[in-house]
Amino acid sequence: MTPEEFRRHGREVIDWIADYYQGLESLPVLSQVAPGEVLDGLPAGPPERGQGFEGVLADLESVIVPGLTHWQHPSFFAFFPANATGPSILGDLLASGLGLQGMLWTTSPAATELETRMLDWLAQLLDLPAGFRSTAAGGGVIQHSASDAVLVALVAALHRASGGATETGGVGTGRFSVYTSGQSHSSVEKACRIAGIGTAALRKLDVDPATLAARPEHLAELLAADVAAGWMPALVVASVGATGTGALDPVSELAELAHRYGAWLHVDAAWAGVAAVCEELRWINAGVEQADSYCTNPHKWLLTNFDCTAFWVADRAALIAALSILPEYLRNTASESGEVFDYRDWQVPLGRRFRALKLWTVLRWYGAEGLRAHIRGHVALAQEFASWVAADPRFELLAPHPLSLVTFAVAAGAGGDADDADHAGRRLLAEVNASGRAYLTHTQVLGRFAIRMAIGSVLTERRHVRAAWQEISDRLAEATVADSRATNSRATGSDAPDSDAADSGAAD
Amino acid sequence: MTPEEFRRHGREVIDWIADYYQGLESLPVLSQVAPGEVLDGLPAGPPERGQGFEGVLADLESVIVPGLTHWQHPSFFAFFPANATGPSILGDLLASGLGLQGMLWTTSPAATELETRMLDWLAQLLDLPAGFRSTAAGGGVIQHSASDAVLVALVAALHRASGGATETGGVGTGRFSVYTSGQSHSSVEKACRIAGIGTAALRKLDVDPATLAARPEHLAELLAADVAAGWMPALVVASVGATGTGALDPVSELAELAHRYGAWLHVDAAWAGVAAVCEELRWINAGVEQADSYCTNPHKWLLTNFDCTAFWVADRAALIAALSILPEYLRNTASESGEVFDYRDWQVPLGRRFRALKLWTVLRWYGAEGLRAHIRGHVALAQEFASWVAADPRFELLAPHPLSLVTFAVAAGAGGDADDADHAGRRLLAEVNASGRAYLTHTQVLGRFAIRMAIGSVLTERRHVRAAWQEISDRLAEATVADSRATNSRATGSDAPDSDAADSGAAD
Repeated sequence: MTPEEFRRHGREVIDWIADYYQGLESLPVLSQVAPGEVLDGLPAGPPERGQGFEGVLADLESVIVPGLTHWQHPSFFAFFPANATGPSILGDLLASGLGLQGMLWTTSPAATELETRMLDWLAQLLDLPAGFRSTAAGGGVIQHSASDAVLVALVAALHRASGGATETGGVGTGRFSVYTSGQSHSSVEKACRIAGIGTAALRKLDVDPATLAARPEHLAELLAADVAAGWMPALVVASVGATGTGALDPVSELAELAHRYGAWLHVDAAWAGVAAVCEELRWINAGVEQADSYCTNPHKWLLTNFDCTAFWVADRAALIAALSILPEYLRNTASESGEVFDYRDWQVPLGRRFRALKLWTVLRWYGAEGLRAHIRGHVALAQEFASWVAADPRFELLAPHPLSLVTFAVAAGAGGDADDADHAGRRLLAEVNASGRAYLTHTQVLGRFAIRMAIGSVLTERRHVRAAWQEISDRLAEATVADSRATNSRATGSDAPDSDAADSGAAD
Repeated sequence: MTPEEFRRHGREVIDWIADYYQGLESLPVLSQVAPGEVLDGLPAGPPERGQGFEGVLADLESVIVPGLTHWQHPSFFAFFPANATGPSILGDLLASGLGLQGMLWTTSPAATELETRMLDWLAQLLDLPAGFRSTAAGGGVIQHSASDAVLVALVAALHRASGGATETGGVGTGRFSVYTSGQSHSSVEKACRIAGIGTAALRKLDVDPATLAARPEHLAELLAADVAAGWMPALVVASVGATGTGALDPVSELAELAHRYGAWLHVDAAWAGVAAVCEELRWINAGVEQADSYCTNPHKWLLTNFDCTAFWVADRAALIAALSILPEYLRNTASESGEVFDYRDWQVPLGRRFRALKLWTVLRWYGAEGLRAHIRGHVALAQEFASWVAADPRFELLAPHPLSLVTFAVAAGAGGDADDADHAGRRLLAEVNASGRAYLTHTQVLGRFAIRMAIGSVLTERRHVRAAWQEISDRLAEATVADSRATNSRATGSDAPDSDAADSGAAD
């Protein structure tokens, strides 16, 4: 593609994206296609001759778009929304255009140094401990995802707990244990499997039933018992805003216990951490100054498109010692001088995209003020939504909701059966999602089927939250009617296929 | 940023990239900045107020570009070039714009199904074994990098070798061993550390001094001795085009031995694998039909910008069993139906960018014909370059060069000292790189300092290869003169600072 063709097709793509955002609201949030439908629309084999660019956008519209679940839709309230914004898309476009590898300082000094500076900026914006800055003993780096962050934290923790013995001898050199709350992200368990200690090494901490926060007393018990039994505690993962319910663990108390037993304390604040851009929400940083590592995802709730996980360590030497390997073909004078960071030694892969560019374009475009306004708006909407739930006796709130995630259930009612209520909740969620008018997902809270309302899309306004509530509220009323019909038809031997069908599709 | 602002700034960025490519040839390939220089050009803290987009491109020009090593430069011959092209940049731009997460089928069915189809297309283009197709028991997936690919191959191999015991009990449940040639990529060693078996579990296979290929006889010896000593062989990694020298291991013989001992055979064809788009180069696929997994990087030499590692397995069930974890908040009807792929279970992280789009735009734009022409052009240039080296008695070729990598050294000459020749080679490389006119890197070949000429940038034409050769050739002549001067000055007690300085900067 010549530069002139690139200019022409580039403009078409830019316009396509702008048009997509302008028309987004009219599309169903959750894709309505069946398995195999998109595959069937694609040729079985690749073209022999080049086809030009013209057909791409047409096929995108006709074959791909119907198969998309629109994560940038203003009525996307599922999982945690993953922000994409104009400045981040353009920063990322520059990274694609430059097409460089920032694995070593020398392979593009600006890629390393812009990343160092952006992570320092972000540490300032979030008021993270001074020790995390590159000018101290720590430092920040962009990881692919929070899963990668907890994996490298675990590898560094094992390296440190073993005095470096795992590097050659592996994790069989000790019996290493890991601790986290049952509310934590599944990536902690996945990291235990990948890092070779297995899930038997993972202890799930009990949570306080009111706050869903990990109980330090339980951690203390487990640590004492494990050490007595010959285990070596390597890592404690504290969640600040756990995935299921947004639970906030008591970082300081967990850190104190971790350090008493020589374990590494990693804070997974993947979703919630960025809220600390707002001074009034900085209480979420309590205890973080005691962490060995910390991660939060600008690619979730800070206006930066995937992938951009910000990961800091208090002692970069420990991380580098765990991950550095220097083959001959990567040796170079700059690295050997010790004056530069080589970020390949801070992560699993070798290759690195120039991801700092999009953080730069985002932080410049919004400024601290704009970032705060973004977070504050969602928190306010979530509080309002929670107040509607609280005021409706057909629903109950299941967890604290200080930020932008509200977890609730269909109320069992006085003397009612929680199983029936959960069944109604499950069907309600499936129907809302199948409508295409909003998309929410669920979790389990202390055995209850919990609907998660995660507010965080850039385009979400009050009217979208209001409409989602209306949809939920109206459908529960209908479902109650349908339910009694189904009960009647079951009683008369019918298969009630309609009520089963309501659970199909992609409600999750 | 409103859609109208996005259109305007989007065009500016598209134009900036087109201009960048048009002016690329006049820039020094290797950045000439000193450590800290880019940092000094960046504000110490983030802006309080948003600054608009205007300043970004200006600062990019003045602060960032001087700190870039230009990987898309036609005279970039270092490491392995990492292709970026118009269609891939635009495909990636669409992925950024859509901003979706393809972790589960249900989170965007088209993201999963386009990826499945594109990996099937690519398997067809490379004539990979039918068993790797999604329609058979295998399947392909895009990984972040070849490092991630070998890591998940190792995790799957350990899971299989242990009969699933590693999942809970970890790798301490057995003494697992891994085998690969001393020429292999450092990611194999890094994977051993991350996966918890440690580097003591890694056996480096001797290579044939003529071909630098792993010796199956050595693998046979090691396997027998290890099993006798109670080790459990888990993984053999065969390289098809090893990083240092492009060595090609005998896949079939290694696979046969691996399978005899129950080990997994992974083929790392990160750089060279894509050459199989050309029928006359398909001999590189010999034995691949016996592999358990295979990876090659379209983001190196197949016109697709980073990241895009294509990874196939012969038995997807083994991979999924090793990596699948299903927390409540990810449960959904589609996944439970078993009718769909959830690619999060094929990789380390949970989140997934819509990377199949850029593979789609690339394969459509170039067609099979265009891909072949791209590979063929580079192979022909490399053969011509090698002929110039061979014809110049001051140099010697150090390894076979059937594809686009030529590894050579300054000749020791009749009765000459190899150390002196290597010293001259090291200085020559530093000078060529410091000139900014070309960028090459080095490796070690059987103790010799080897210069690597890796031809693979999209913009590289014959004149760039010719100019690089001229530069190398002329500078060696000058260096020889300087060398005798330095020898003279050393003899007279001078410090010869100039000849030391020549080794500074970023020659690697």
